[in-house]
Amino acid sequence: MHLGTLTIVGVGLLGGSIAMAARTRGVAARIRGVDISRENLDHARAVGVIDDAFLEAGPACAEADLAVFCIPVDHIADGVLQAAGRCGAETTLTDVGSTKGRIVHEVEAGMASPVAFVGSHPLAGSEKQGVDFAHATMFHNRLVVITPTARTPAAAVDKVRHFWQAVGARVKTMSPEDHDRAVAFTSHLPHLLASALAGILPGDLAELTATGFRDTTRVAAGDPGLWSAIFRHNHDAVLSALDRLEARLREFREAFGQGHTISLEELLTQAKRVRDALGS
Amino acid sequence: MHLGTLTIVGVGLLGGSIAMAARTRGVAARIRGVDISRENLDHARAVGVIDDAFLEAGPACAEADLAVFCIPVDHIADGVLQAAGRCGAETTLTDVGSTKGRIVHEVEAGMASPVAFVGSHPLAGSEKQGVDFAHATMFHNRLVVITPTARTPAAAVDKVRHFWQAVGARVKTMSPEDHDRAVAFTSHLPHLLASALAGILPGDLAELTATGFRDTTRVAAGDPGLWSAIFRHNHDAVLSALDRLEARLREFREAFGQGHTISLEELLTQAKRVRDALGS
Repeated sequence: MHLGTLTIVGVGLLGGSIAMAARTRGVAARIRGVDISRENLDHARAVGVIDDAFLEAGPACAEADLAVFCIPVDHIADGVLQAAGRCGAETTLTDVGSTKGRIVHEVEAGMASPVAFVGSHPLAGSEKQGVDFAHATMFHNRLVVITPTARTPAAAVDKVRHFWQAVGARVKTMSPEDHDRAVAFTSHLPHLLASALAGILPGDLAELTATGFRDTTRVAAGDPGLWSAIFRHNHDAVLSALDRLEARLREFREAFGQGHTISLEELLTQAKRVRDALGS
Repeated sequence: MHLGTLTIVGVGLLGGSIAMAARTRGVAARIRGVDISRENLDHARAVGVIDDAFLEAGPACAEADLAVFCIPVDHIADGVLQAAGRCGAETTLTDVGSTKGRIVHEVEAGMASPVAFVGSHPLAGSEKQGVDFAHATMFHNRLVVITPTARTPAAAVDKVRHFWQAVGARVKTMSPEDHDRAVAFTSHLPHLLASALAGILPGDLAELTATGFRDTTRVAAGDPGLWSAIFRHNHDAVLSALDRLEARLREFREAFGQGHTISLEELLTQAKRVRDALGS
């Protein structure tokens, strides 16, 4: 794949990594960066992450071959719709949002132009933030879920799929709803639990934490604004996953007592089998 | 500190690491290893982790300066009491069990000899098992909690404290009960949650897990037998910590709806503050 112009809207950890991967792999002739911070843009240009800097997405997306929105989930649909007004049929828009249903449906409901949008979610990132943590191998062998609908043009789906493959990722297609139900279990509920666990740690016990506590709560260092927006977007699926978790906690609680149907050792063995299969 | 004979009962990850640290730092003239597996003992001796191999703790602890019991928590008190019958006043016994109340009180209730026992819990280890994962720097700068009681001889407390410092650790003294309440929050509840989370993952979603899920559930790969014994030993404190966690989950659940008293962003911000303070 070789694009003329690639536009990155939001030059942070993910946006910066996409730009660096695209540059390293020769995927785009020119990379435009959009950010609300002039200072961040100047820095990203100075270190060679982007070629051109824009404070607004519209002009930066106009005539681009592909624009990737790497901004908080609650700003993606509006941002895409505003930028689409400046684009022609040559431009495809995508994103990296951790939720897909609401974004995809708001974009489809609001899109008046012939511009195509394909939802994407790279299962990559970190609790760290900012372009200084970006790296060109962020997507290497990582999974990117794309979520086209019946209304998405096949050519746009192909362009987005080939783009993610070109920056090193594997691509899986799911419906926006299936995606959201899945990440409720694999990402959003783990974040909620990590935050709950970190949040109830009595202050005087910090010195008694070791690697187990640190691993289990690591994602709780993520940005609260980004994550509260993700939770609001995926409200129903997260609460369903939480129902399931609370049911399992009741099984653990019963297993501590007499007359349980599943023993502690059985619960732990079943979990170990799942975890072992995931690898380190 | 320089010991004549150091006895390690249970030559696995922790026992092997203690032996290697003691040898590397010249803490003991001779290291005896006890294990139920002759094959494991032969391997540990072949690779230089121990000098002498024993299949029973009694003869291996006799005339030792210090014996460290590195066996599952539900075997420690019996093992210590049996070995103590073969020891004189020169021998001090300690352990590495993740729970302390029940072990310390069973040992104190059963000890007829003049042998001193001091409970220890090094906050170190891994979900990995076996002497092949042992390493001499396991305790470097890690915290070891020791849990003497009013009945523990001061000289024995000093010997155990100096031993842990000699293998690189920092030492903190707590009562067995305070220790158990603390590790319920910092270690046992995180393990229970990691296991619950891994255990409810729908089978077809494994490919959609990324580093967040893997970090949050890593400890669920621990040994189910060891961990069910830990949970049984620390039953009350773990269930109290679980009460607190479930109350926090209710606060999260309310924050998803209308009319909450604490917002999602406030809950996440408070957790991030705690987690950030722990470092990576």
